[in-house]
Amino acid sequence: MRLGILGGGQLGRMLALAGYPLGLSFRFLDPSPEACAGQVGELVVGDFLDEEALRRFAEGLELVTYEFENVPVEAARFLEARLPVLPPPKALEVAQDRLAEKTFMHSLGIPTPPFRRVDGLRELREGLEALGFPALLKARRGGYDGKGQALLTSWKEAERAFHALGGGELILEGYVPFQRELSILGVRSRTGEMAFYPLVENRHQGGILRLSLAPAPGVSPTLQQKAEIYARKAMEALGYAGVLALELFQVGEEILFNEMAPRVHNSGHWTLEGAETSQFENHLRALLGLPLGSTAPKGHSAMANLIGVKPAFAQVLALPGAHLHWYGKEVRPGRKVGHITLRRDTWEDLARDLPHLLALAQAPEPV
Amino acid sequence: MRLGILGGGQLGRMLALAGYPLGLSFRFLDPSPEACAGQVGELVVGDFLDEEALRRFAEGLELVTYEFENVPVEAARFLEARLPVLPPPKALEVAQDRLAEKTFMHSLGIPTPPFRRVDGLRELREGLEALGFPALLKARRGGYDGKGQALLTSWKEAERAFHALGGGELILEGYVPFQRELSILGVRSRTGEMAFYPLVENRHQGGILRLSLAPAPGVSPTLQQKAEIYARKAMEALGYAGVLALELFQVGEEILFNEMAPRVHNSGHWTLEGAETSQFENHLRALLGLPLGSTAPKGHSAMANLIGVKPAFAQVLALPGAHLHWYGKEVRPGRKVGHITLRRDTWEDLARDLPHLLALAQAPEPV
Repeated sequence: MRLGILGGGQLGRMLALAGYPLGLSFRFLDPSPEACAGQVGELVVGDFLDEEALRRFAEGLELVTYEFENVPVEAARFLEARLPVLPPPKALEVAQDRLAEKTFMHSLGIPTPPFRRVDGLRELREGLEALGFPALLKARRGGYDGKGQALLTSWKEAERAFHALGGGELILEGYVPFQRELSILGVRSRTGEMAFYPLVENRHQGGILRLSLAPAPGVSPTLQQKAEIYARKAMEALGYAGVLALELFQVGEEILFNEMAPRVHNSGHWTLEGAETSQFENHLRALLGLPLGSTAPKGHSAMANLIGVKPAFAQVLALPGAHLHWYGKEVRPGRKVGHITLRRDTWEDLARDLPHLLALAQAPEPV
Repeated sequence: MRLGILGGGQLGRMLALAGYPLGLSFRFLDPSPEACAGQVGELVVGDFLDEEALRRFAEGLELVTYEFENVPVEAARFLEARLPVLPPPKALEVAQDRLAEKTFMHSLGIPTPPFRRVDGLRELREGLEALGFPALLKARRGGYDGKGQALLTSWKEAERAFHALGGGELILEGYVPFQRELSILGVRSRTGEMAFYPLVENRHQGGILRLSLAPAPGVSPTLQQKAEIYARKAMEALGYAGVLALELFQVGEEILFNEMAPRVHNSGHWTLEGAETSQFENHLRALLGLPLGSTAPKGHSAMANLIGVKPAFAQVLALPGAHLHWYGKEVRPGRKVGHITLRRDTWEDLARDLPHLLALAQAPEPV
């Protein structure tokens, strides 16, 4: 059975590696002939909006999924007329618009930071009067890894940012003094079955995820339950199939919705070694309507991204419990080229080696 | 970095899936265009003794390994003149000859069942007089999965088997009333570093491995230590690199050597989910001289082979802790087409579901 994946990056690559043992094969569509998933499956090079490429891509596929949320919704809709596209394109539509996703979550009773639509300077001023400084001004579309947003501490900054971000199609968000960023990954099968991974703690640097701790230390059962209820509500409302990631802010025993990703997620990479079933396998099981695998963690894991740096493999692999995932991409500044997961039976044992893990993830290979 | 693998079966396929996260890519050589590893890497179709095919295969490779032990030694030698071939072809040579492997182990002080070389009826008669009935008569070469051997309980049977097995190039072995079959997998890096997985209990049916229990229940530290010493001796004597499997008979607190396989092994498939580092990844680390990964088990695992049967995937995946590995091969009677590993935190929990696992592995998909 052959599945199609829109996008040929590392998420597609890891989906394929998880899918081969289930007897699946894969075809990717990506505008770049260098797309790293092409090393492990068939790659169709073409633009997502090129109908001829979409037709060639879709030929003989069982169903189509996507590995990044900026796939044009039109492409998903075009394919949906021919074969199942999962998660449903509606999820893509919502996730591509910061205003739509917050409005959607809000309508489900899921708490979010306060937000306002901003299409003009008057709305910006009214919004800032209501929400106060500091606040965040963000492009509704296209931002990722901390791009397309500005922290506002004065009206002067606000005006400058408004123009720099395009002068419209923006969202203003009240600044929430959160303790930490968490994420929850839910998965819903076509059959309606659902499962949830434990909450993960995420640490960013320069807007890019650097480190995930899984399960997040010090999470109360109540907090985990709240996060599961939110993910459940969102998946049910979307008639979802696949893995859904919710990025959250923790404020005491409350959690606020920040962003969603209708796909496998960087903060779930630890599941490859640290959970009974990986997010990649569960995404595929869900799409195919197969029973979901256990999401129980195996011990404690820390995942560090490799960003613009190729570490010395021998040094990484010398650390007991360290697992290297190199994506086969050319190293460029700021680019995610791999990750390391460190898995240990106890949190204490993991915590002791966290500095070592972070040092490995930041040290380039000696030349 | 591109590695070559002689043979394109499921072992090659699983090696590739374990190697992609290390940034490796793979080329397989196999006589069959249907070889299932070709679904996950580049396949060169050609005979192992076709020098032109070997040359095409070797072009641009970093090193070559093999995934089944009946690769002609000449092919390995031919390639060795051009690039590293690991494990060393010497290991292939020894493993391909039941007399040579037993003689080799015996010379290292590793206990084996009593054995005699048999090239004529007179040697057979003398051997049977020394070893007594019952005894086993085996072809020295080419037998696998219980083929090419006969259990002898009378002189008449012996004579018939002698002719049926080719009338020469045989080995006669004393029958050992063992309690169970075990195997140990050792791994030795090009750097000389060594590691050992826990002993595994193997249950065969019709000469084919049906079930492995890992770690083997009820193994004393002394027994594990003995097995490790034997594997260590064998690897050192061969100047080995890669995973080496020793199949053993347990007789009380003694173990006898039965067979070796100079490659990743069916009784090590459980390591994919049940050990910190899989046999496939450790084989690759060893070939590349990278530090070996931890061989510590994660809980308790049972691996059941799928032989000539495609189970209903949904039924398999509905069992918590079950992991399906389908090799992408056409189902034929007696053919290994996949395996299921059931992993649990405790042996009691695993033992309770063993009958369920075995039932799943034997039930064909309902039509």
